[in-house]
Amino acid sequence: MAQQHLEPTDPLSGHVGPVTGDALAGYLRAQATEFLRALRQHRESGGTAAGAEDPVDAARALRRSVRRISASLHTFRPLLEPDWSENLRPELAWLSGTLGLEHAYEARLERLLLALHRLSGAVFPSQPVESRTAGAAPAPDRGNLTVGAAKAGALLDRQLTLARTRSHSTALQALGSSRFHAVADHIAVLASEVPLTKTAPTTDLRPHASAAQERLEDAVTALPLVTAGHPYNAEALIHGLSPDPSPHPQDAPWHQVRLLLRLHRYAREVLTGGNPPLDVRLLTAGQALDRHRDASEASAAAASAARTPRIAPATAYALGVLHADQRHEVEAARFAFQQSWQKQAVST
Amino acid sequence: MAQQHLEPTDPLSGHVGPVTGDALAGYLRAQATEFLRALRQHRESGGTAAGAEDPVDAARALRRSVRRISASLHTFRPLLEPDWSENLRPELAWLSGTLGLEHAYEARLERLLLALHRLSGAVFPSQPVESRTAGAAPAPDRGNLTVGAAKAGALLDRQLTLARTRSHSTALQALGSSRFHAVADHIAVLASEVPLTKTAPTTDLRPHASAAQERLEDAVTALPLVTAGHPYNAEALIHGLSPDPSPHPQDAPWHQVRLLLRLHRYAREVLTGGNPPLDVRLLTAGQALDRHRDASEASAAAASAARTPRIAPATAYALGVLHADQRHEVEAARFAFQQSWQKQAVST
Repeated sequence: MAQQHLEPTDPLSGHVGPVTGDALAGYLRAQATEFLRALRQHRESGGTAAGAEDPVDAARALRRSVRRISASLHTFRPLLEPDWSENLRPELAWLSGTLGLEHAYEARLERLLLALHRLSGAVFPSQPVESRTAGAAPAPDRGNLTVGAAKAGALLDRQLTLARTRSHSTALQALGSSRFHAVADHIAVLASEVPLTKTAPTTDLRPHASAAQERLEDAVTALPLVTAGHPYNAEALIHGLSPDPSPHPQDAPWHQVRLLLRLHRYAREVLTGGNPPLDVRLLTAGQALDRHRDASEASAAAASAARTPRIAPATAYALGVLHADQRHEVEAARFAFQQSWQKQAVST
Repeated sequence: MAQQHLEPTDPLSGHVGPVTGDALAGYLRAQATEFLRALRQHRESGGTAAGAEDPVDAARALRRSVRRISASLHTFRPLLEPDWSENLRPELAWLSGTLGLEHAYEARLERLLLALHRLSGAVFPSQPVESRTAGAAPAPDRGNLTVGAAKAGALLDRQLTLARTRSHSTALQALGSSRFHAVADHIAVLASEVPLTKTAPTTDLRPHASAAQERLEDAVTALPLVTAGHPYNAEALIHGLSPDPSPHPQDAPWHQVRLLLRLHRYAREVLTGGNPPLDVRLLTAGQALDRHRDASEASAAAASAARTPRIAPATAYALGVLHADQRHEVEAARFAFQQSWQKQAVST
C-alpha cells in the first residue's frame, strides 16, 4: 500500500563524469571554515544570552557545521584517513549533543506552554516568546488558565528552565575545555587540509551517497506506515499509562529515520557542491520527523513532571491531558510523514 | 469542499401512488404492539437483571418502540389529533430518558475501562464484560495497570456503578408508577386505534418525511465538516482544560444531527411499511454519531471523576490522559462522519 521508495533523484544532472573525493574535501573545508567563523562570532559575543541574538545564532551555526562534518565522516568513511576520522567522530557527537541541549529545553518549554494555552481555550499569545511567562499571567479574552493548567505550566517552566540553565553552563564549560580545544584544532586543520586516503581524490562518491539513501529507504520500509496512514489509529498513546519506565519504544524507529534522512540530505549537499536542488519531499518529511521528535520529548517531559512529589491532583490532571495531547501530536506527525512520503512517490 | 446533501433516495420505489396516513397508522399500531409485548416480557422476567438477558432485551425493546412512536408523533404531527399527541410526547420523552440511563452508565464504564487497558498497553480482555472488574485484577502479559490507572479504574467503577444502580432503581420505580400506567394505557389504545385527523387517511406522508430529511441536511451543512475532514485538527480537545464548567459546547450541534438523523431514519421506516432499503450511508453516519456521543460523555465522566476530592495525583494524571484520549475519540468520530457523508455524496 505505502510506496516507500525514493524517487530516482539525480542530484548530479548537469555534471559530467563522477563526483570524486575532491568534492568531499571541498565540502569539508567549507563546513570547517563555517565552524571557525561561528566560533569566532560566539567568542566575540561573549557566549551569553545577554547580548541580543548573536550568541544564539552563533551556537546554531556551530551545531549546523558540526552535524554536517560528522555526517560526512560517517557516510564517506572509506575515503578518509581512518585513524583521524574514527578519533574525531565521537568528539563531534559529544559537541553536537552538548551544544544542542539548551535550545532543545527552550523549545520544549515553549511547545508545552503553547499547548497548555490551546487546551485551556485561551487565545494564543501573538508573540510566541511571550508565552514563556504566560503560565502565570492572565491571558486575554476567555484565556484565564484553570488552576491546574497554571500550576502545570509553572511546574514545567521551573523544571525545564532549570534544565536549560544547566545546559547553558555545561555548554559554556565545554567550549572552554581542553577537550573542545582539541576538536577545534582538528577542525582548523580540516579547513585547509582534508585527510583523504590516497585513492580518494579519484574515487566516485556516488555509491556511498546511494548507500546512505538505501539505508534511509530500508528504515522507512520498516516503519508501520500503513497504520500511520490511517488517521486516528490511536497507536501513539497506546502505552500512555504503561508501567514501563521507557514507555515509548515505538518512537525509536522514527527517530532513527529522522537521523538517516539527515545523513541523506547532507550527502546530497556533498554531491552538489553544497547546493542540492530543492526536494519538497525531503523537506516535508524532515519537518514531520522533527515534529515527531519534539512532541515525543515534550510528552515525556509532561509525564516526568507529573511524577514530581506532592503536586496537587489538578496539576497532575492537567499534565495527563498535556501528555496525551503531545502523544497525539506524535501520531499526527507520523500521519504527516506518511502522507508526504506517499504523495511524492505516487506523483513521480 | 464538503458535499453535504443527501443523495436523492426514493424509498418509495415500487409503490404506486402516495403513501398516506393509513401507513402511519399501521406503523404506529405495530410499534405500540411491540411496546406491549416488550412490557409483558419485562414483567414476566421480574424486571431485575438477575434472570439472564431477558429484562435487558425487554428494556431495549421498550426503548426502541418508545423512540419510534415519539419520533413519528413529531415528524407527522399534523396528521394526528393534536390534544392527544401533544399530551403523549413529553411522557414518551420522560420514559425514554428514564429507561435509557442504566444502559448508558454501563456502556460508559465499559468504554472507559477498555480505554484504560489500552492506554496501559495491556492486552484486551477477551470478553469485554470481564473488564468490569479488571481495574483491580492483574491483566495477562505486560498488562499490569499502573497504580494511577488502577485507581482511576476503581474510582470510575465506583462512581458509574453507583449511578447505574440508581438509574436501575429509578427505572423500576418509573415502571411501577401511575404516570407510567397512564402512558401504557395510551399506547394500548394506540395498538388498536390511532387518533388520526379526519383528513389524514388520504394525506400524503412524503412532504413531512422530506421536511425531516431537510432538517437533517440543514443541520449537517452547519457542522464544521471542512475542519473535521482534516485529520488531527486538534479541535476536540481545545477546551480540555478550560475553566468553563460546560467546556464542550462544540459537541452540541453533532448531538443534534444525531437526533435528526434518527428522526429521518424512522420517517423512512414509516414510508416503507417498516422495511426501508439498506442505506449504508445512514448506517455509517449514525454509528459515527453514536460513537461521538459516547466518547463525549465518557470524556466528561473522566473529567468529573478527576474533581473528586482527595484523590492521589497519579489517579488524577491517569484521568487526564483518559479524558484527552476520549476527546480524541470525539475528533475521530467527527472525521469518520465526514468521511462517510462525503464519500456517499460523491459516489452517487
